[in-house]
Amino acid sequence: MKQDPMLLDTGLLSPVRAGAPVEAVVADPAWLQAMLDAEVALVRAQSRLGTVPPAAAEVIARTAGADRFDLRALALSARLTANPVVGLVRELTRLVREQDPAAAEYVHRGSTSQDIFDTAAMMVARGALTLIRADLRDVMETLRTLAVRHRDTPMAGRTLAMQAVPTTFGLKAAGWRDLVAAAESRVAAVLTGGLPVALGGSAGTLAGYLEFARLDAPGGAVDPATYVDQVAQAFAEECGLTGSLLPWHALRTPLADLGAALAFTAGALGKLATDVLTLSRTEVGEVGEPPAAGRGGSSAMPHKRNPVLSTMIRSAALQVPALSVVLTQSLLAEDERSAGGWHAEWLVLRECLRLTGGASHTAAELARGLEIHPERMRGNLDLTHGLVVSERIAAVLAPRLGKTTARQVLTEASAQAEKQGRSLADVLAEATAVRREMSREETAALCAPEHYLGAAAALVDAAVTQESE
Amino acid sequence: MKQDPMLLDTGLLSPVRAGAPVEAVVADPAWLQAMLDAEVALVRAQSRLGTVPPAAAEVIARTAGADRFDLRALALSARLTANPVVGLVRELTRLVREQDPAAAEYVHRGSTSQDIFDTAAMMVARGALTLIRADLRDVMETLRTLAVRHRDTPMAGRTLAMQAVPTTFGLKAAGWRDLVAAAESRVAAVLTGGLPVALGGSAGTLAGYLEFARLDAPGGAVDPATYVDQVAQAFAEECGLTGSLLPWHALRTPLADLGAALAFTAGALGKLATDVLTLSRTEVGEVGEPPAAGRGGSSAMPHKRNPVLSTMIRSAALQVPALSVVLTQSLLAEDERSAGGWHAEWLVLRECLRLTGGASHTAAELARGLEIHPERMRGNLDLTHGLVVSERIAAVLAPRLGKTTARQVLTEASAQAEKQGRSLADVLAEATAVRREMSREETAALCAPEHYLGAAAALVDAAVTQESE
Amino acid sequence: MKQDPMLLDTGLLSPVRAGAPVEAVVADPAWLQAMLDAEVALVRAQSRLGTVPPAAAEVIARTAGADRFDLRALALSARLTANPVVGLVRELTRLVREQDPAAAEYVHRGSTSQDIFDTAAMMVARGALTLIRADLRDVMETLRTLAVRHRDTPMAGRTLAMQAVPTTFGLKAAGWRDLVAAAESRVAAVLTGGLPVALGGSAGTLAGYLEFARLDAPGGAVDPATYVDQVAQAFAEECGLTGSLLPWHALRTPLADLGAALAFTAGALGKLATDVLTLSRTEVGEVGEPPAAGRGGSSAMPHKRNPVLSTMIRSAALQVPALSVVLTQSLLAEDERSAGGWHAEWLVLRECLRLTGGASHTAAELARGLEIHPERMRGNLDLTHGLVVSERIAAVLAPRLGKTTARQVLTEASAQAEKQGRSLADVLAEATAVRREMSREETAALCAPEHYLGAAAALVDAAVTQESE
Amino acid sequence: MKQDPMLLDTGLLSPVRAGAPVEAVVADPAWLQAMLDAEVALVRAQSRLGTVPPAAAEVIARTAGADRFDLRALALSARLTANPVVGLVRELTRLVREQDPAAAEYVHRGSTSQDIFDTAAMMVARGALTLIRADLRDVMETLRTLAVRHRDTPMAGRTLAMQAVPTTFGLKAAGWRDLVAAAESRVAAVLTGGLPVALGGSAGTLAGYLEFARLDAPGGAVDPATYVDQVAQAFAEECGLTGSLLPWHALRTPLADLGAALAFTAGALGKLATDVLTLSRTEVGEVGEPPAAGRGGSSAMPHKRNPVLSTMIRSAALQVPALSVVLTQSLLAEDERSAGGWHAEWLVLRECLRLTGGASHTAAELARGLEIHPERMRGNLDLTHGLVVSERIAAVLAPRLGKTTARQVLTEASAQAEKQGRSLADVLAEATAVRREMSREETAALCAPEHYLGAAAALVDAAVTQESE
Repeated sequence: MKQDPMLLDTGLLSPVRAGAPVEAVVADPAWLQAMLDAEVALVRAQSRLGTVPPAAAEVIARTAGADRFDLRALALSARLTANPVVGLVRELTRLVREQDPAAAEYVHRGSTSQDIFDTAAMMVARGALTLIRADLRDVMETLRTLAVRHRDTPMAGRTLAMQAVPTTFGLKAAGWRDLVAAAESRVAAVLTGGLPVALGGSAGTLAGYLEFARLDAPGGAVDPATYVDQVAQAFAEECGLTGSLLPWHALRTPLADLGAALAFTAGALGKLATDVLTLSRTEVGEVGEPPAAGRGGSSAMPHKRNPVLSTMIRSAALQVPALSVVLTQSLLAEDERSAGGWHAEWLVLRECLRLTGGASHTAAELARGLEIHPERMRGNLDLTHGLVVSERIAAVLAPRLGKTTARQVLTEASAQAEKQGRSLADVLAEATAVRREMSREETAALCAPEHYLGAAAALVDAAVTQESE
Repeated sequence: MKQDPMLLDTGLLSPVRAGAPVEAVVADPAWLQAMLDAEVALVRAQSRLGTVPPAAAEVIARTAGADRFDLRALALSARLTANPVVGLVRELTRLVREQDPAAAEYVHRGSTSQDIFDTAAMMVARGALTLIRADLRDVMETLRTLAVRHRDTPMAGRTLAMQAVPTTFGLKAAGWRDLVAAAESRVAAVLTGGLPVALGGSAGTLAGYLEFARLDAPGGAVDPATYVDQVAQAFAEECGLTGSLLPWHALRTPLADLGAALAFTAGALGKLATDVLTLSRTEVGEVGEPPAAGRGGSSAMPHKRNPVLSTMIRSAALQVPALSVVLTQSLLAEDERSAGGWHAEWLVLRECLRLTGGASHTAAELARGLEIHPERMRGNLDLTHGLVVSERIAAVLAPRLGKTTARQVLTEASAQAEKQGRSLADVLAEATAVRREMSREETAALCAPEHYLGAAAALVDAAVTQESE
Repeated sequence: MKQDPMLLDTGLLSPVRAGAPVEAVVADPAWLQAMLDAEVALVRAQSRLGTVPPAAAEVIARTAGADRFDLRALALSARLTANPVVGLVRELTRLVREQDPAAAEYVHRGSTSQDIFDTAAMMVARGALTLIRADLRDVMETLRTLAVRHRDTPMAGRTLAMQAVPTTFGLKAAGWRDLVAAAESRVAAVLTGGLPVALGGSAGTLAGYLEFARLDAPGGAVDPATYVDQVAQAFAEECGLTGSLLPWHALRTPLADLGAALAFTAGALGKLATDVLTLSRTEVGEVGEPPAAGRGGSSAMPHKRNPVLSTMIRSAALQVPALSVVLTQSLLAEDERSAGGWHAEWLVLRECLRLTGGASHTAAELARGLEIHPERMRGNLDLTHGLVVSERIAAVLAPRLGKTTARQVLTEASAQAEKQGRSLADVLAEATAVRREMSREETAALCAPEHYLGAAAALVDAAVTQESE
Repeated sequence: MKQDPMLLDTGLLSPVRAGAPVEAVVADPAWLQAMLDAEVALVRAQSRLGTVPPAAAEVIARTAGADRFDLRALALSARLTANPVVGLVRELTRLVREQDPAAAEYVHRGSTSQDIFDTAAMMVARGALTLIRADLRDVMETLRTLAVRHRDTPMAGRTLAMQAVPTTFGLKAAGWRDLVAAAESRVAAVLTGGLPVALGGSAGTLAGYLEFARLDAPGGAVDPATYVDQVAQAFAEECGLTGSLLPWHALRTPLADLGAALAFTAGALGKLATDVLTLSRTEVGEVGEPPAAGRGGSSAMPHKRNPVLSTMIRSAALQVPALSVVLTQSLLAEDERSAGGWHAEWLVLRECLRLTGGASHTAAELARGLEIHPERMRGNLDLTHGLVVSERIAAVLAPRLGKTTARQVLTEASAQAEKQGRSLADVLAEATAVRREMSREETAALCAPEHYLGAAAALVDAAVTQESE
């Protein structure tokens, strides 16, 4: 294949997926091969039903190798028909004819471009989703380990950017895992039942298939209902995809579902990345990205260790949900095949698969090597001198001192602690009203962030034993 | 409640939902009542666990009527805390205190704004989704009837805006139904398992709940794991929602799922509307919207009967997928509660529910009264003088005349038919090569659009007996 | 006007705009009045051209008060025609007829719903944009003051979440101002030339207007070119809007431009809010939101002072860009008036105006009272013990020590500083290679963050003297 | 350069741009060259200021050819730093060092990755926008010719999918042109003032540049304000871009503006495509796409001539506005450089440029060869038997017959015309009330669609003489 450098897409503008396995699975050659595989699956299915000679099917199968085709020429030919299948069929027919003129008659028999293209798209999606699912399971497993290990590691819970009350890093990791598990289950659902072959013929009636079946069938008689069932089943088996109740040229459920699952997955990974970025901040320093030679450096500042994995994951999470709108909007297809709506899906589907596949691949690397700094977590919990447990102190003091006194004592002690840079526990322990009710040890225990973790540990236990939904 | 006209939202800018049942279900008063219901459910759950006196719970329940609150004052108070729950709790506490000071202590006990708000949002969503689901079932049933009735009504299948090959109106209606059924199953899935109560306390550890449970429990001892399980279950039961494995303040799966289901539903209904608009075109005229007094008129052209129901449905379908991006992007919540991400969901969720609810309501009306014009469908099939079956003619003639001759004959005959305004069947029947092979009757049958419907009828039969996925 | 509480939109779900002046300007009653104003402007324009009796125009003007109309009834009537103007015209005509049957003939004379609705939308937009622009100017002025005041206040510059090199708060404030100024100039451009009257008649030819002009004109003769010019100019003057070269029923430039300007503005304010949120973090603490009684509190944690203004602004910034897609997509209007595309604009336009108006109003409050903590900024600069200037040290040492030695010395010193918790300056000063080249004072000066501010001050000076673009 | 077929992006999934000139301009090699050009421009600018030896600048310039670099290796290296510039600088430095070790010191002197990447992005954007602008001017010119030629060609004006009143094809073409002209003016505005160089150094203070300038300057003294001005101006001149008031690493005005201009342009072209698709419909047939050998065929139906150019244009118009949201949302950049927000822009910017460039290229081809069928336009105007002018008839008859009688006569005649398939003019002419008032000729003239074109011709005249805004 002659290659113009201008045709390269090396991932230069998309580091999140550069070199990730998903790249090869969704690249132009893979898509081309999937279209050829769909043509082969179709003729084999027809052959299984007895309307195409097995030998012809096999000649076609032998010929349908992507490396025999000039990708760029096919892409350019697509401008004549708004899709690359017409050119592909012409070229495939030519190549088959060179070997077996009779077999050439059976290429794309009764078919239509969209049947081939959409089936190929589903095969490509299957390949990418399979990779993504494996990555998600990997991330889930790593996060489970982290959650268990840090089940009791206290850290500040933060809401609206401010420290609120303590939580644990285990619970945070369990939460990330929960979200990734939700993504995994959505991807699995699409993989299991959401990737149908497309089989409709020119306008969704399969009329072309039936006409040729009648012409090709030994007896010439073909019952539409039976034939449609059988050919769809055989085609689906050959493709490793599912069937669909109705031809879906203009019923874009699979695309909308893919869009939703991918947007969810990218978003879920984006939550992980967002939190890692926040916790990595110089001033927070509670986690660190896995070190690697040369990673995280900047062109000017050799000391920096930038959270680049999270940065790349987040870049994908900021793109996929917006891009996936195009896939949802493809539901508004007009007629039996949309003029433009269908064509708008292709690039976007690939990018959503590729970005999400890059993000899941990167997330596996991030999770695996994430450095946790419990001492910084503990240190940060002390930044407010104990205010991080003021919710608890207020609750406990109120019944003992009376609500009004309790609030007054707490308010004054908080102000004093902040002003003097002392711990709230110490200041409170000296307050007359408190001293009457509690020992210094009790006060200290009341104010210790690690004693106010609620059900964090129990939640972690419950979450990590749970399979994905 | 004092009402400033400036606070009205009458649906003036959103006719698709003006007057639809969904409006009342998602309006401000409904949302307020849902927040109050969440507070009541919480205190009742706590009462069932023995930490709140039943009498206190009942005083709170009796007080928690939306009509006792000044909605606008609550909305304005939300500017102080970025959510309306703080103000609501203050006011509810005040009202309860007026009746029973002791009971006032138990309002919002151990809770946090987001638990109440999110739980309320799920209850509001449940109400709207229940209406939407019923509408979708209604539409499905009507479309099933249409599909069966027009199982064999031929019409032009259109691809890329052009007549391609014949199909049937039954198959088109079955396709619409299939899409609506897919929407129904997605809405049902959310209704069944996707609407959890929110129960996390200040930062997702339930620490506040546990602290108060310990203070309030007869013996004072509370096992976190047991308590969390029990209170979550009791709260979910009181709310009629499900539980969730983990607090989801910053794990926005429910919002992303709602966004996806609503975008899908609006998009699915948008397909129906798009097709009705196309088929209603003056030049096509194959369907007509249900007539009603005054409907479809224009301010200037009394003769027009505009397809206003489809127009309104499509307007929703053009909004919801774009809006729902905000709900998917909410997955990128930072920390234990997002500063802004959470708050961006509310308005958008309501609009997505309301627009989709309006669209489903309108679709039920549209489907029920849709007028079908089989004679116009038949007439339009003749517009191309038979070219609409050229795919078939080519297939049939090729083996009889040889591929080259067949193509030549067809090309010439097509040109002649178009030029002379005669039917392709007539022209072909006079072609020497054809005359030798077929009788005039055979040629006519070959060229009759109603004889080239493929498996349309079989597909309809299969589709309408299928339950929703 | 009878008011059903279910019709209230109090801002409960949108605190960013609750109580902001923009609310009243875009509410249903304001939109209704704008439609009535458009009808009045039209008949007055026709009257100025001599085709409508001035007295009739004045009767119509006197009658066209929004409070005479039942908003809800109009909204419901819109379901018959997919827009509220038909019902409005019917009711206005009835009210005018009660006073002067002859005048009633001139209501909506020659007009079409979209002329009235779109013109009203532009008037509503003008009102909202005027408020927004004033807010933006207010924010710009406040930020200018901040930039000047903190021209030389050092703080950490942060990239990819990590401290990079020092910058100044003045430069940060100048950057925010620059973005707000860019927003202001985009809003101003729309206000100045982007809000045209709509005047096209039924399908954009003004045929209805011309027909009635001929019937109504004293002499009966009307030159189309002249008339169209004159009526458009008179209408625009009456409305306080601009004219447009062509009727724009299906040429949605104004909507796309509004969407772009509002998305830009919300995004620009979102940058400010995002930065304030980051700088407010407990661990960063460099800025604080303006304190106000009750503001920033949480329902559970009385000690918290949440950055609620930024939270609300960010919530708008997370919505408007996504919503505005609908306005851009409205460009794909089909025919002379879109069935659904037009109708999808209304709600979204209002929300974009209202959210942006709320955000700009809130931003003015935020900027005005923002608390700056230079001491925390200085303290945070020391967190890395001097690594924040390692870029500079490397540059300066290299020519003196040789590149290799310099790098080695810096690497070792950095490690030592971090390990021992000492300042990089002290460690470096003790390094033999450095000692040979620099005095301790020189080393200290080299490592002082406040000496490595680049052109920050000069950039502030240049930026604050600049008018908005 | 070794080329793995998996790295190819041939346009297979994006026929709208396959082979269009924009492809080469935005491809990876072009982007790489632009980054190299930015490095060269920077060192030349520094050389002009006397801080870099001219010879060193020229060695760097001679070395900075994209073909010396391994694109894939660079893309993969970007995973270590989340951007490709660090790897690029390392490699460029190595190559320069091979020739002139002293010159190698001046590569990327004082700079930061984002300065180079963003400057390169602006150069790439300039190249693409220049092509797009030329295409838009081409389209405008063609449409102007069409508008003038068909100034008086009557056709049905359609609203809400139905024929409303007559218009002219000239006015429709003038409307398309108006929208394209608006796009052109937005693209021109970005080209003229919206593409700045990026020059900020590590965190936007230019500290690195200044430090090296001091080290490199003959006298060692550098005034920050002067230097910043001079280097920015020199850099901008070398790049052929504009300067910017402030470094914009985190002030993403240029990206938001590019997004808005490209979304507008794609949308404007989408209107043209949408209308051509509608008018091409088999049942409408008023326009046809330019014929070309093999174009518009289908894989199954040789007779079809699909409107593939419009289909491809519309596919772009359905993508770009949704994609561009990512560019607008990039405004919410945190800190001095966003972790993820910046990185999310790159791919999307390229796709927006490439899709819009493909759409404009395709639109030029479409407009140039568009076939207009005035006779079908005329024929379709008769489909309603005259109802298409009922607005006019009502207006004219009312004063003559009295409003009530006029409406009754028109209603009855319309029903009769439709029922009998006669023209409304004939039926009306026989109505007693009408006969008393008008001759048969007058009635015919009243009902002739071509006599009810309003100001269409005048609007065309005004529009086509107007320059773009």
